[in-house]
Amino acid sequence: MRFISQTSSDGVTEQFFTLDEVPGVLWSPEGARGPRPLILLGHGGGQHKTAPAAVSHARRYAAEGFAVVAIDAPNHGDRPQDEEFGRIAAAMRAGMHSYLADQAVADWQAVLTAVQRLDQVGVGPVGYCGMSMGCGLGIPLIAAEPRIRAAVLGLLGAHGLAEDAARVTVPVQFLVQWDDQMVPRDQSLALFDALASADKTLHANPGRHGDVPPFEVDSSLRFFVRHLS
Amino acid sequence: MRFISQTSSDGVTEQFFTLDEVPGVLWSPEGARGPRPLILLGHGGGQHKTAPAAVSHARRYAAEGFAVVAIDAPNHGDRPQDEEFGRIAAAMRAGMHSYLADQAVADWQAVLTAVQRLDQVGVGPVGYCGMSMGCGLGIPLIAAEPRIRAAVLGLLGAHGLAEDAARVTVPVQFLVQWDDQMVPRDQSLALFDALASADKTLHANPGRHGDVPPFEVDSSLRFFVRHLS
Repeated sequence: MRFISQTSSDGVTEQFFTLDEVPGVLWSPEGARGPRPLILLGHGGGQHKTAPAAVSHARRYAAEGFAVVAIDAPNHGDRPQDEEFGRIAAAMRAGMHSYLADQAVADWQAVLTAVQRLDQVGVGPVGYCGMSMGCGLGIPLIAAEPRIRAAVLGLLGAHGLAEDAARVTVPVQFLVQWDDQMVPRDQSLALFDALASADKTLHANPGRHGDVPPFEVDSSLRFFVRHLS
Repeated sequence: MRFISQTSSDGVTEQFFTLDEVPGVLWSPEGARGPRPLILLGHGGGQHKTAPAAVSHARRYAAEGFAVVAIDAPNHGDRPQDEEFGRIAAAMRAGMHSYLADQAVADWQAVLTAVQRLDQVGVGPVGYCGMSMGCGLGIPLIAAEPRIRAAVLGLLGAHGLAEDAARVTVPVQFLVQWDDQMVPRDQSLALFDALASADKTLHANPGRHGDVPPFEVDSSLRFFVRHLS
């Protein structure tokens, strides 16, 4: 067990450690000596040992005299992802999306028709913007729906989508998070590759699945202005 | 298409509507008349049409002159969950957890042994606290690990866990979110039922998967004080 850092605040000491390849953190009352009850704190799927809710939970327990320890679950947080896990997760997500896709495509088509009847919308050019599951349901929609003329997509891999992606020919801006804990990088690149669009741009940024930088919203806006206005 | 509400702020009008059973929201520039380009905005898995990131995104586009429409994907947001979707999602989660469980149990056992060698922890009583995936990995751990003497669990269904749950005999406090969009209610109740513990308490609160009320942290703390101190 190798301790990496130690800080104290509000009467609680926080120590980061690794045990072999497992990264963890131990909270205890500041200046604590001698045995005390210990709480093992397990985080949720896609989360990690120092997700904000876990930390506040842990500090609360430690302030009451407990020792609390949290570790990153396998394939989570600071631990490496094994390829097999990435494949299993991608296959599961693809199964979920494909179960929802027919209904989602029909919903969007009906809503598009209804919204275009409104005076303040009308029959102008249409774009689609969706990440992650929004990309997984968007690709079958764009493949089926000639009214959509440009799309911002991303944060998803090719699993289960290659056939529909090959029918997408409109301009696409495609976002990749370089350290995405949910989508293996090669799967993201494969989905970008599978899009048949001649006009497609990949934007990759460092960070995890939820960490798309705010400036990408501006970039999407400029993309839609360019293609729809 | 039936409009339910309309509000305007910062130059953007927001209109909630339903089209048949599909709930949606339309953003447009305040006072807009005549045709304009339209963006369809698809949300991510487990999210909904008015997730904060989606709303700020949509308002940004509308402020630039676009119309933007978002709808709840099937089985998401304000739409009902069909049982088949619940079953598919539960089976997928169970597959993921079971892939991780052996490694997670071994990690926790090694960390527990190492942490109990520290002076400020020692060989005192041990509790486990984990929701959602933290529950899915915690149940096999508690079933395998006699040092754990009490547990706070929940936000997960019985799928794939019944056998290990039947080997959990320590006191358990079990949390259910009554309107959990990820875990069907009957699956949650079935997991509580499957725990072999004679001393077990179910706490159910209204709200979605992420909405466990803060007072449950106090309740967990009292539970651990009662069983470990």
